Amino acid sequence: MATRTPGSVLFRSLKALQVYGANTDVGKTVVSTILCKALARATPEQQAWYLKPVSTGPLEDADDYSVSRFSPETRTKCLFQYDLPVSPHIAARGSKLPAFNDNSILSQVYSHITECHKAGPGTLLLETAGGIHSPTPASNSQADLYRPLRLPVLLVADARLGGISSSISAFESLHIRGYDIDSILVWENRQYQNHAYLHDYFKPRNIPVLALPPPPPRDNDRARDHEQMSLYYEKVSTLEKIDAFVENLSKNHEARIEKLTSLSTRAESHIWYPFTQHKDLSAKDIMTIDSAYGDFFQAVGQSNAEVPNSEAPNLLEPTVDGSASWWTQGLGHGDPQLSLAAAYAAGRYGHVMFAGAIHEPAMSLSELMLQNMHNPRLQRVFFSDNGSTGMEVATKMGLTAASQRYQHAKHDIGVIGLKGSYHGDTIGAMDCSEPSTFNGKVHWYEGRGYWFDFPQVKLKAGNWIVEPPSGMENGFGPATEFASLNDIFDMGTRDQSLAASNYRSYITEVLGRLQNEGKRFGALIMEPILLGAGGMLFVDPLFQRCLVQVVRQNPQLFTDSSSPSTETASPPSSQDLGWSGLPVIFDEVFTGLYRLGRFNSASFLGVDPDISVHAKLLTGGLLPLCVTLASDSVYEAFLGTEKSDALLHGHSYTAHAVGCEVARTSVQKMMEMEKTQEWSVFQNDWSSSQSNTIDQESSQVWSMWSQGFLHQASLSPSVESVVALGSVLAINLQDDISGYNSTAARGLQGRLRADFKDFSIHSRVLGNVFYLMMSQTTKMEAVRRIEQMVLASLTGSS
Amino acid sequence: MATRTPGSVLFRSLKALQVYGANTDVGKTVVSTILCKALARATPEQQAWYLKPVSTGPLEDADDYSVSRFSPETRTKCLFQYDLPVSPHIAARGSKLPAFNDNSILSQVYSHITECHKAGPGTLLLETAGGIHSPTPASNSQADLYRPLRLPVLLVADARLGGISSSISAFESLHIRGYDIDSILVWENRQYQNHAYLHDYFKPRNIPVLALPPPPPRDNDRARDHEQMSLYYEKVSTLEKIDAFVENLSKNHEARIEKLTSLSTRAESHIWYPFTQHKDLSAKDIMTIDSAYGDFFQAVGQSNAEVPNSEAPNLLEPTVDGSASWWTQGLGHGDPQLSLAAAYAAGRYGHVMFAGAIHEPAMSLSELMLQNMHNPRLQRVFFSDNGSTGMEVATKMGLTAASQRYQHAKHDIGVIGLKGSYHGDTIGAMDCSEPSTFNGKVHWYEGRGYWFDFPQVKLKAGNWIVEPPSGMENGFGPATEFASLNDIFDMGTRDQSLAASNYRSYITEVLGRLQNEGKRFGALIMEPILLGAGGMLFVDPLFQRCLVQVVRQNPQLFTDSSSPSTETASPPSSQDLGWSGLPVIFDEVFTGLYRLGRFNSASFLGVDPDISVHAKLLTGGLLPLCVTLASDSVYEAFLGTEKSDALLHGHSYTAHAVGCEVARTSVQKMMEMEKTQEWSVFQNDWSSSQSNTIDQESSQVWSMWSQGFLHQASLSPSVESVVALGSVLAINLQDDISGYNSTAARGLQGRLRADFKDFSIHSRVLGNVFYLMMSQTTKMEAVRRIEQMVLASLTGSS
Repeated sequence: MATRTPGSVLFRSLKALQVYGANTDVGKTVVSTILCKALARATPEQQAWYLKPVSTGPLEDADDYSVSRFSPETRTKCLFQYDLPVSPHIAARGSKLPAFNDNSILSQVYSHITECHKAGPGTLLLETAGGIHSPTPASNSQADLYRPLRLPVLLVADARLGGISSSISAFESLHIRGYDIDSILVWENRQYQNHAYLHDYFKPRNIPVLALPPPPPRDNDRARDHEQMSLYYEKVSTLEKIDAFVENLSKNHEARIEKLTSLSTRAESHIWYPFTQHKDLSAKDIMTIDSAYGDFFQAVGQSNAEVPNSEAPNLLEPTVDGSASWWTQGLGHGDPQLSLAAAYAAGRYGHVMFAGAIHEPAMSLSELMLQNMHNPRLQRVFFSDNGSTGMEVATKMGLTAASQRYQHAKHDIGVIGLKGSYHGDTIGAMDCSEPSTFNGKVHWYEGRGYWFDFPQVKLKAGNWIVEPPSGMENGFGPATEFASLNDIFDMGTRDQSLAASNYRSYITEVLGRLQNEGKRFGALIMEPILLGAGGMLFVDPLFQRCLVQVVRQNPQLFTDSSSPSTETASPPSSQDLGWSGLPVIFDEVFTGLYRLGRFNSASFLGVDPDISVHAKLLTGGLLPLCVTLASDSVYEAFLGTEKSDALLHGHSYTAHAVGCEVARTSVQKMMEMEKTQEWSVFQNDWSSSQSNTIDQESSQVWSMWSQGFLHQASLSPSVESVVALGSVLAINLQDDISGYNSTAARGLQGRLRADFKDFSIHSRVLGNVFYLMMSQTTKMEAVRRIEQMVLASLTGSS
Repeated sequence: MATRTPGSVLFRSLKALQVYGANTDVGKTVVSTILCKALARATPEQQAWYLKPVSTGPLEDADDYSVSRFSPETRTKCLFQYDLPVSPHIAARGSKLPAFNDNSILSQVYSHITECHKAGPGTLLLETAGGIHSPTPASNSQADLYRPLRLPVLLVADARLGGISSSISAFESLHIRGYDIDSILVWENRQYQNHAYLHDYFKPRNIPVLALPPPPPRDNDRARDHEQMSLYYEKVSTLEKIDAFVENLSKNHEARIEKLTSLSTRAESHIWYPFTQHKDLSAKDIMTIDSAYGDFFQAVGQSNAEVPNSEAPNLLEPTVDGSASWWTQGLGHGDPQLSLAAAYAAGRYGHVMFAGAIHEPAMSLSELMLQNMHNPRLQRVFFSDNGSTGMEVATKMGLTAASQRYQHAKHDIGVIGLKGSYHGDTIGAMDCSEPSTFNGKVHWYEGRGYWFDFPQVKLKAGNWIVEPPSGMENGFGPATEFASLNDIFDMGTRDQSLAASNYRSYITEVLGRLQNEGKRFGALIMEPILLGAGGMLFVDPLFQRCLVQVVRQNPQLFTDSSSPSTETASPPSSQDLGWSGLPVIFDEVFTGLYRLGRFNSASFLGVDPDISVHAKLLTGGLLPLCVTLASDSVYEAFLGTEKSDALLHGHSYTAHAVGCEVARTSVQKMMEMEKTQEWSVFQNDWSSSQSNTIDQESSQVWSMWSQGFLHQASLSPSVESVVALGSVLAINLQDDISGYNSTAARGLQGRLRADFKDFSIHSRVLGNVFYLMMSQTTKMEAVRRIEQMVLASLTGSS
């Protein structure tokens, strides 16, 4: 049986707290001992536990020994003991113990806490080593190591000179990692009075500061020292304020549970959810997320007994964020680097006016994006707040440029796109898509344009095929098999194929017919490769490539034939960066920035768009920001003598510094991952040459999802076909009804949420399409385990 | 002459650096001495300066004495010396020196640095006291006190056991306040090897760590100690790596200037600005913002000589953010509390999926908003990313509810609003406004609705008046004088007036006519009181109140008269929370959340809207977030058996945790300011009873701008009229052309940017309207000084 993945700990009958120190030698163990003694006295029917995961120094001085000596009722434990009295990372180097990585420490800590819980009700104190950032045996910060547990913190402040500063800084370092500080404890000191200052400082932050009499100075005579400490502990652990403190620990624990378990009911009463039919939604359907770290939500379990006993499960279940939180996650949740980047920009700028102004994060991000698109057309960056607004900006750009050249009327102009496309929820972005479930009932929505049906890429019953749209086998020929997904992406070869020539003829013919019908167009808009909201539809890249080719090479198709414009540009040479035919807009909001395994998804088509829109992964999955990149040729259409000729669009928080700094950090981090071949373990599985060396220049396509898994899944009787690229997996399930109104994927979704011991999987479905999407930082073992779960769920076993 | 407001320091010929310590007693002064000696040796033609602003402990041990003893070439200075060897906040209490607040310390530090600069080229080291958060004499954190200077930091790390943790935490506390860390220095220590760990830790963060031989242990014999230290200094200050380090300080200084001064040119090449005609924009028009704090940008000055000499001015000019960064600022720039709130949510959640899920920050913010609107209709919260998208959501809500009741067709439906209104830049939000400069040339824009012209409130030549729209004196009567602005807002009295009855008749007549013309409407949409983008137009609140009354009391005006609906609701009783006539939408994106002095601006009208939209100040001015609050009666229109009946809108980052946590923090902070009467100094000026006690329940209107100033400004020959409410001031300038195309306000704008010694003012103008907008945290002295500047600029003197 799979063991549970270590995650947050929240048992009703076990209070687990983490003791951090503002520095080393501030009295963590003395505080722990006092509390353990007080707990034993206050609740003798319950157990007090003390856990020191990692300890350094001679065994006879070890903290767990000291606690058990003075508080014999407490059950103490140390998991990793090193002899040298230095930081664990140095002690580990000199030790004969095996090298422990952070994961193995975390697992053992998690198991130990679970065992304590099973043994009956009580309180557990987990005492850390040194200061909060003291290194783990594997040289990372222990504040990061223990973060997944997210235990409430008792921070022992520093009472010495300088201790105000180190205590506040320690608090801040924990806080920006998403820890909640339950209370602060500190020795009284008449001279420095740190306790008084800290009390006032933390009062408006709702963190109580408890000042305690300091222990007597260490006596070198062990017996006398022991005796003095015994007296000290007896006195301090029976203070009234300690009783009150211990009682508060219980109250806070219950208040946390009460608050957390009430959230779904409160949400049902007052939240209006996006894309949600509330008629079918009750509180029990609402997932309460206590926190998230890496790939996991820590979510309130679906069947939590309210009885506080040792059989009751952990209230919080590690739950894979299987939709990458609506396609946004790149670096996993709770990344401290992104948290610091956000805070740095907030501290340096807040938000500053952007119209007519510039700041470093916006400029650096702009240059980073332009340089790494490797598209010489793109020279300008326009900022907005999300994919939908970024697409409105792109559309305004395209329509203005085209109608200026072709002298089209202002309203009488549409876009060319693909069926099933989706570009956002604001009316202008909706207007770029054909009528569908998403927009059909929206007032003021009016699909403006023409949308091509297109051939799709699928892995069907073990074979990669390109399948023509139904009813169009005549024009495109029957479904074609390919030896590999890579062959489908071999644009060099396929460009010369009969398929390409069929595609071009068909497209030219349709555009000619539309022109004759008097239809006027202002832009070609496409999501390269993968149409997300439309149902994770995988477009034949050759078809999209041909569409761009035909549009660019035939500007005469877009003039008003009744009054031929003299301004029609001739087909561009390869050096010409001006737009031709129509401005080509790529909506890479979802597909760009490594979602499909590459910096941009235009590169799969070998096509340079005139306008490219990027959001979602742009900030690594932290907060909204969008960039619309454009060519000078498009930009120049807005230069004029009048202000009203300008692109009159701009949100108050345009290019907000926090978003720009977070985006710069995360884009750089993902680029660094590519450079250091972090994904080679996945790429190896897709390498057709069977070689273990990945050619950096290679045009190999790859996915985090293994070829073997896809093959097996595609053979399941309930599966129509599967596709995968980059971190995206989509499984098209057999159903009589297809599309958004199908409920075929619900069963699979439900089994993945409930059937597994180690963790569960939260997913979103699109009608009969079940999909999963990981972060760019997800480890191979996690993906492989999820693959097992999916296969088991497809066949009905778990 | 006014003295310069202390701000960031960046002189070409003076390198100024700040020495912070990871803890007290880590060797800041020894490091400073080493560097001073090395500087004197490396650049004997330049001056080395050492400044210890605040020192505690006996004079003979003072740090500046020590530096000058061992580095006699260095010019040292201490500004505030306390005898007690404790933290400055305790030392100050026991001292005979006057109590110094942070501002006076900052001013003296700033003056001293400026004097050093004038004395010739060199390097200045500013050594702080204790650890980074050590308290100032006024008990605040010194990291906050010195933040406005934003000097590059030399962080002296802690080489002792536990020092890894305290050094990293100190770095994080500085970083989240927007400090840049130039380098880290630390003593070598074989046993703990902190220097090695820190070196590896900070390498990917691009911060070099320099390890130095530690000083000899202190010798109690002063003479011997002196001798040993002299030898130590001679040895260490001549190390090759110290030479390299000192050279790097220069390189980094020049690189910073180079980077900063190149930003505007790089921006000109690649940024596409919002609402900006680029044809007229050159690099010199682009304001480069190095950082911002409180009310001030630290912006690269407009006339910076490139010669590095002691006459050249500070490259950075403190510049008032006079547009509140496009109307967003509430708590000032660089607020550490908001920075921490952002980082906490990032660390705890990142962004987590919101559809069908809930997290604490979203729920708390929702309840906070619903409870404090004091509008019993509002029960539901829908999240989006900015005001424009929030208005699209509101419009979708309103149109669906109305056309469901009245059976209107999907496209054939408009909104009722006011002329000059503006609701955002996305097409759907644009469609809610009449054609104007902002949207007239936008493709797909189509104003859908009817917009009433309206009477305006003005202070004209010293008198508060309500002025009818031109050409409508017949219906509304001539301009009416009022004794005070307060009287204009006295809805109880004015509701019974002839004006109210005129307004109602007029509105009823117009709506009847529109109905007869076959026009169909789905919502009444208004910005209460102040139409921002339309030109800071101040609407007579009585007119808006009457508009709502007429719409709600006459549902028969909105039915299709050719096929009377049986579903027409009767006029609502006061208990009825259902919408009547049309859903009433208030766009409080700009006017809400204390911008006009109150939590919401609906309260000025005494009207409860059915839908209310809030953004901008929602996050205190940090990042984009919007809430659309709605009544259950509107919400119920979306309950249905089909998914497509739901409100199908939702951005990927819906209710992102960072935004929600920042919003919760800032809304609570502003509410706390109201509760503790932080604005009473401003309110007193507006108290008509001449009393100094502010009645909490009072309906008094007030502004940060004083009545006397408004009166004087309104008398200026160049001024047509002025208005002010809350933090907003608008001055309507005389011009033959009025509106967005006027350039009348440019002169005033230019004088405020250039003419003053203490600070300059950055402002945005709207045609002939000059406006200023402060934060909710701006102090009265600043507002009064700005008033002086405006008056001086209006009359042409400075």
